[in-house]
Amino acid sequence: MFGTFAVLALTASVRAQDPLSSWNDGKAKQAILEFVKATTTQGGPQFVPSEARIATFDQDGTLWVEHPMYTQVMYCLERVPDLVKARPELKDKPPFNTVLELLHGDRAAMEKLNIKDLEVIGAATLAGMSVDTFKAEVKKWLGAAKDPRWKRSYTELTYQPMQELLRYLRANGYKTYIVTGGGQDFVREYAEQTYGIPPEEVVGTAGETKYGYDKNGKPFLTKEPKLILNDNNAGKAEGIHLMIGRQPYAAFGNSTGDRQMLEYTKAGDGARLAMIVLHDDATREYAYGPANGLPNTKVGTFTQALYDEAKKNGWTVISMKNDWKKIFAFEP
Amino acid sequence: MFGTFAVLALTASVRAQDPLSSWNDGKAKQAILEFVKATTTQGGPQFVPSEARIATFDQDGTLWVEHPMYTQVMYCLERVPDLVKARPELKDKPPFNTVLELLHGDRAAMEKLNIKDLEVIGAATLAGMSVDTFKAEVKKWLGAAKDPRWKRSYTELTYQPMQELLRYLRANGYKTYIVTGGGQDFVREYAEQTYGIPPEEVVGTAGETKYGYDKNGKPFLTKEPKLILNDNNAGKAEGIHLMIGRQPYAAFGNSTGDRQMLEYTKAGDGARLAMIVLHDDATREYAYGPANGLPNTKVGTFTQALYDEAKKNGWTVISMKNDWKKIFAFEP
Repeated sequence: MFGTFAVLALTASVRAQDPLSSWNDGKAKQAILEFVKATTTQGGPQFVPSEARIATFDQDGTLWVEHPMYTQVMYCLERVPDLVKARPELKDKPPFNTVLELLHGDRAAMEKLNIKDLEVIGAATLAGMSVDTFKAEVKKWLGAAKDPRWKRSYTELTYQPMQELLRYLRANGYKTYIVTGGGQDFVREYAEQTYGIPPEEVVGTAGETKYGYDKNGKPFLTKEPKLILNDNNAGKAEGIHLMIGRQPYAAFGNSTGDRQMLEYTKAGDGARLAMIVLHDDATREYAYGPANGLPNTKVGTFTQALYDEAKKNGWTVISMKNDWKKIFAFEP
Repeated sequence: MFGTFAVLALTASVRAQDPLSSWNDGKAKQAILEFVKATTTQGGPQFVPSEARIATFDQDGTLWVEHPMYTQVMYCLERVPDLVKARPELKDKPPFNTVLELLHGDRAAMEKLNIKDLEVIGAATLAGMSVDTFKAEVKKWLGAAKDPRWKRSYTELTYQPMQELLRYLRANGYKTYIVTGGGQDFVREYAEQTYGIPPEEVVGTAGETKYGYDKNGKPFLTKEPKLILNDNNAGKAEGIHLMIGRQPYAAFGNSTGDRQMLEYTKAGDGARLAMIVLHDDATREYAYGPANGLPNTKVGTFTQALYDEAKKNGWTVISMKNDWKKIFAFEP
């Protein structure tokens, strides 16, 4: 009697708890549910053994907000005042002087920064210190920094539907990797707390480290300004091979930088899920493409060619506006 | 009544099943048991949460036989006949002609091969083909190749006590990584079947791959002859940071190539286990050092300096002769 009651109660509770409750019913949600069912149904023609269940997620623009500027770039810029304090000779030198102006409110100065400038600032703020020092600096910054629009920590700006998707895939035996163009060490600093993804499941742009000893003979690693893996575009497929060693069954992205990861995932046998987030919700988040006539952008570009490739190759486009009932956990 | 019986039966069964039954009682076995108890006792001062339980294992000479020559070098040499068939211009060119002599029985010719020769042979047999072609070639070779002394597959020459140790650590919530100077793609081809270690938990010497498309537009990766990570010596600590992103709690090695990995592991807070296998059993396996007056070798060198560092830093030396009751699973 008690047994029957417990089973009924459990069934009702499972029914009540839609694991993807922030998704509207539609093609995107359907594609996820069908993929998971197909790959986890024992004896089914598309069953995937649990050890092969790998899913990879781009981060910026796929799991959290990337506009108006990538969080890591904000980190690098906001590190400049401390950097200049430690190395005063940089104070009047471009691009550091431009960054100082910019942080003092002259936002127009941001236009003056080009890729080369950002590389110089990146090399000065992301390398040249011990791994432990870098981790402490990132942690401190993350605890204090706020996104200017929402006045919230950057780590609160994750997409609730994607958080549900991560949990849903993991509940179905998938390992969920981040595969990001962002810095591997940077993202690892918050991925576990923010997404439940441990450091060893974060693949990102990575530089060399150098092994050495402190004055007491204790070993430590120093971050060197030399790139090992540029984890963007083709580098995402190459990075997946380097760090994971097998093709994912599911991959999620939002921009041209994710194209090869999605192609590489879809190239495998059996059921493969490729999804791409379209930022078409200017009210609740941002709208940019230029696919589908949306405004153009340099940050997280989703071209019409990419949109056409998605349609041609059976990738599912996720419309933030139509497919997501709720975007952030903090929404009322 | 039934409950009590079941508990008693289970207790008896657990007692009967020593998880490290191929280890003799002694300091090495004791160190393992104490470490696992300390790091898994909830509420204890050295408790480690399960997500941080990382253990790293060197492969050649630590998990399986490396003498008289590393298995992967045998692979490269035995690939030369097929390579010469495909590229006849190499037939009379050194070092390929030397390898052909050697494979025809003139073992003395092996002496003529230096590191530079091995690099040339490695570049020709480990790169320049697609990842899938490489995987197929390795798989085929592993299925046919035999170790000349034991006349068994190389994958049978794993150490039974280390297999037990891998399983014992995993049963206690540890992720067990291979961190090898050998080729990452090579080791990944058999690590899952041989050790229960999936590709994403194999860290090894890795080269670049290059993303491209076949004539039907299907993407694939080509192995390039350019090194990304030389996963030996300091490269092991650097590789652990790159691929795992945190310091291991336990590390196991057998040669100078493992020194920095063991130091890096021991440098962490709390209970850390560092163990190093000494090949001192010429009868059941091989004897080499030159530590402890054992014969010198270029393959898996264990110097007296390393032995002294082990003693000084609280690493546990595993004597194959004294600590291992059984070396191979196939022993009677």
